[in-house]
Amino acid sequence: MEDDAQIIDRNPLPEGIGERLAAQLTFIAEADRLKTILRASPLAAADRRENDAEHSWHLALMVLLLSEYADESFDVGHAIKLVVVHDLVEIYAGDSPVFDPAAVVDQRAREEAAADRLFALLPEDQAREIRELWDEFESGATPESRFGRAMDRLEPMLLNWLAEGGTWQMPGATVETVRAREAGVVAASTSLGAVTDAFITEGLRHGWIRPAPGREPGD
Amino acid sequence: MEDDAQIIDRNPLPEGIGERLAAQLTFIAEADRLKTILRASPLAAADRRENDAEHSWHLALMVLLLSEYADESFDVGHAIKLVVVHDLVEIYAGDSPVFDPAAVVDQRAREEAAADRLFALLPEDQAREIRELWDEFESGATPESRFGRAMDRLEPMLLNWLAEGGTWQMPGATVETVRAREAGVVAASTSLGAVTDAFITEGLRHGWIRPAPGREPGD
Repeated sequence: MEDDAQIIDRNPLPEGIGERLAAQLTFIAEADRLKTILRASPLAAADRRENDAEHSWHLALMVLLLSEYADESFDVGHAIKLVVVHDLVEIYAGDSPVFDPAAVVDQRAREEAAADRLFALLPEDQAREIRELWDEFESGATPESRFGRAMDRLEPMLLNWLAEGGTWQMPGATVETVRAREAGVVAASTSLGAVTDAFITEGLRHGWIRPAPGREPGD
Repeated sequence: MEDDAQIIDRNPLPEGIGERLAAQLTFIAEADRLKTILRASPLAAADRRENDAEHSWHLALMVLLLSEYADESFDVGHAIKLVVVHDLVEIYAGDSPVFDPAAVVDQRAREEAAADRLFALLPEDQAREIRELWDEFESGATPESRFGRAMDRLEPMLLNWLAEGGTWQMPGATVETVRAREAGVVAASTSLGAVTDAFITEGLRHGWIRPAPGREPGD
């Protein structure tokens, strides 16, 4: 962000809309920025990187379709809410590619500051509600957040598989760092963990994932 | 679609994934195409058109934040599911801009055919479940679908407002056809209907919306 201007400043809302609803519409307009935050992951359907808004939508669809594989029962509607809001803070904090050590070093602090600024656009009760959803997602402390986080790991693995590399080819990625990501899937679902395991084993065999430093493929 | 190839054909799933889960992952990979289906609406945050996946995400966020304005109580989690799946058929049927008379003439038939083809990728029970969600959204027969449809009308109006025109400038758009779209918002929420009314009244006054044929602004 180069300045503090909000999207709504471009063309302020018509007169006569109450303060609460105007705040909500201001936030909804500002949220349009999530469509411009690029992730490192390549789309399967086009030759470009994925943005946070379409990624969040894809996770929501995956929660809906894959819930049966969760090791613990959970509330699908609530888990979808978590994934819908989980990347909002990146509007101001930017994406932090997981295989980029420089990006993740101050990630938490940047995202906390972004949350404070972004959610403050909302009426106080809703700022608190959205903040609680984000905190819950980040915590991984509930079955819903564990399943949402598993989708947030599985989706880029599927995109990498379809790209025969994708972010697995980033400098910081080796089979060890990729396996560390897989743990988030295993934590929520044994069956889906087996899928990520197959992606990684086969990806390593094909050379789409680099072996651990100092090792040769097949060691 | 130029041929019947699916995204998953590019790099078939590893061996050993059961038939049901493989079908679900095939569908999830194919759904990546929704990120490439462009709508007529301009983004507020970037100089390009919106795609269906990020649009669907934006509706989900709006359902979450604006549910308090619904005239009837409804299940927020269920309404979010409806908006997450509501545009999936456009993967094969394409977008049908509402102000383009040629696009909407055979829209229903094209979308039915697309639904038959797309949902058939899923296991039968889930194909039925997703089809039911889509049918419910299309029907507008439940409070959840009425609110989801209202967001599907309100979001592009907000984008048009921020663009000082947007799709209101398309050849087929006049204040009459724009007002016809507004009815979908009014049907679910008096308060949000008042917002769309303000957008249209002010948009007409500024010349961002054309007056009805044969009339001058202010008539």
